Amino acid sequence: MNNWKFNTPGIPDNMFIRGKVPMTKEEVRALTISKLRLKNDLHVVDIGAGTGSVSIEAALICTLGKVTAIEKNPEGVQLIKQNAESFNVNNIKIIHGRAVETLRNMEAFDRVFVGGSGGELKEILILCKEKLNGEGIVVINSIAIETLYQSANILKELEYRDVDVTLMSVAKGKSLGNYTLMEGLNPIYIVSARR
Amino acid sequence: MNNWKFNTPGIPDNMFIRGKVPMTKEEVRALTISKLRLKNDLHVVDIGAGTGSVSIEAALICTLGKVTAIEKNPEGVQLIKQNAESFNVNNIKIIHGRAVETLRNMEAFDRVFVGGSGGELKEILILCKEKLNGEGIVVINSIAIETLYQSANILKELEYRDVDVTLMSVAKGKSLGNYTLMEGLNPIYIVSARR
Amino acid sequence: MNNWKFNTPGIPDNMFIRGKVPMTKEEVRALTISKLRLKNDLHVVDIGAGTGSVSIEAALICTLGKVTAIEKNPEGVQLIKQNAESFNVNNIKIIHGRAVETLRNMEAFDRVFVGGSGGELKEILILCKEKLNGEGIVVINSIAIETLYQSANILKELEYRDVDVTLMSVAKGKSLGNYTLMEGLNPIYIVSARR
Amino acid sequence: MNNWKFNTPGIPDNMFIRGKVPMTKEEVRALTISKLRLKNDLHVVDIGAGTGSVSIEAALICTLGKVTAIEKNPEGVQLIKQNAESFNVNNIKIIHGRAVETLRNMEAFDRVFVGGSGGELKEILILCKEKLNGEGIVVINSIAIETLYQSANILKELEYRDVDVTLMSVAKGKSLGNYTLMEGLNPIYIVSARR
Repeated sequence: MNNWKFNTPGIPDNMFIRGKVPMTKEEVRALTISKLRLKNDLHVVDIGAGTGSVSIEAALICTLGKVTAIEKNPEGVQLIKQNAESFNVNNIKIIHGRAVETLRNMEAFDRVFVGGSGGELKEILILCKEKLNGEGIVVINSIAIETLYQSANILKELEYRDVDVTLMSVAKGKSLGNYTLMEGLNPIYIVSARR
Repeated sequence: MNNWKFNTPGIPDNMFIRGKVPMTKEEVRALTISKLRLKNDLHVVDIGAGTGSVSIEAALICTLGKVTAIEKNPEGVQLIKQNAESFNVNNIKIIHGRAVETLRNMEAFDRVFVGGSGGELKEILILCKEKLNGEGIVVINSIAIETLYQSANILKELEYRDVDVTLMSVAKGKSLGNYTLMEGLNPIYIVSARR
Repeated sequence: MNNWKFNTPGIPDNMFIRGKVPMTKEEVRALTISKLRLKNDLHVVDIGAGTGSVSIEAALICTLGKVTAIEKNPEGVQLIKQNAESFNVNNIKIIHGRAVETLRNMEAFDRVFVGGSGGELKEILILCKEKLNGEGIVVINSIAIETLYQSANILKELEYRDVDVTLMSVAKGKSLGNYTLMEGLNPIYIVSARR
Repeated sequence: MNNWKFNTPGIPDNMFIRGKVPMTKEEVRALTISKLRLKNDLHVVDIGAGTGSVSIEAALICTLGKVTAIEKNPEGVQLIKQNAESFNVNNIKIIHGRAVETLRNMEAFDRVFVGGSGGELKEILILCKEKLNGEGIVVINSIAIETLYQSANILKELEYRDVDVTLMSVAKGKSLGNYTLMEGLNPIYIVSARR
């Protein structure tokens, strides 16, 4: 069990057990969690959970709620299990499967984060519109311009409300002798909306 | 009293009562709070609190702790009072005064955020090194390159540890007919360190 | 006549006569001209020329060539005329009209820049594919995510080659007393391709 | 000899012969050349020329002028020679040496680019103030926050005029299947001033 004890989002990347699966970085996670507008008793769904970093962040905040992490890649499923153990969280249910089928069989939930949509973004957002509770919020992160466009477009088409598009570009200082060199991370679009 | 009920940082800008005083924007605030690594029982000091937006965010998270907001500008002091009332927080102590004198008279605290240093950044950081508890963290936001340089430089000179420099550039989508135009906000450096 | 005498792109914004028409900013113009890969004898078409800033830059480089500036807005047409006079360039032909009709009636050309497409981006790119000479290059600037997506998507669909997508975010330093505050400009996508 | 035949700055990175020496990237080079405000008959000095990419760009524009490339690293000197040959430019004089000593022995020049200052930025800028002709321009690129601060600070201290600070963040699209993923490059500050 690790020693992360804080109540604010943005857990350092190096506290996660990682594999070949891409992981949402610290600062992007912090802003993603922010856009999810969590309360401690919500049910959050993490689609394409990958390493489970967003699931972990959400689980630590929703202490009276729960997280359902859906991941199709077996390596990702293993990593989520290991990270849940490492962070001592026991309110994450991990489902090894594809998003659309899994969502169809789910009861209502409060928040959904789409980190990866496996090409099924429209069906996922149609199902979320059904399953999200009254004040429900969806957040979709994109590094590809096609996903960015589809996110914003489908959310409007399906009449989600308050569609918010935020582009976040982060650079981190890296020490080299007496110098602090700024290293650029990939820009990311965080698109959110209310049901 | 307003209806903000969430437990995650990044309160929308329009929920704050604002004046001519500059205010830290939503996404920057979310990342600032993230870098402060808060726990619910900490004592957070907000230097150059301005509108009080960071104080409010911290007060809402540190429900078992408290916030000391130091602001020299009387308009800022009024705004912090009004915002504290609007968000129904009663754990913010507002001090109308200059940072250095105020810090000198303070007991130890756990976190400090420097939004404005009135040209006294070095003295402020020397006092914070003294007053910060064991695991204490300081976060300094800069929009000016001189403040960026001084922050990083002074923190290293005073032997703060784990100096982290993050450049954050945000752009927000604004709807115009069928188009989402991206509007750039000012880039901001968030520099943090541990005592 | 003004005193701009340099051979490199990126004329300062304040050297142009401006109106209510939006104008491509200096640094974006420099990179746009770069992506156009000009030679001094080319025929460049500027679609949605606006203030004429890109036309002027191209005209100054293509001293043995020419520029055709297509603009539907009468205020824009006036501004292009005034700017051409101010910069003493006489190799810009200004056409007051819509892009699609105008392009249909044109002979072949070497380069095309699309600053504004009035919703007809696909027809414009179909016509450009026809009219562009062998090594011809098209450059499209977007501040809207829809235009970004359509640019990249249509270029690939029409089998343009070497589609290049560049996101450029610029911030400029503004002096305030002893401080240099960084002010963010809107991020812009510069998409280019070869016929 | 390669086939680069265009008159605009921003030669693709892959046209340069490269080694372990860091090289200014295409879009940054385009903006750097823009800020240098070149005319075809100028004498340009490239300090810390590295691979020679900025020297090559300048030499191709200053066809009636010349470039002096100063580089202390023998590998860099070799690369500049090879690139000059590849681009068929014969107006670059390569000096294997340190900037300060070399500048001391030079006649007046018109433009200077500082890509690397080996810790001697102040002495370099003092010498440039002396040696730059009347309308001379200096451009300094920084990826480190210390260099950024020193550039702006020393230029003001030495009373250079019209100090301009531009932050440029570029991301490039990379194709993966049907997706265009945006990859962030390191942000860079381009600081320029007139003598």
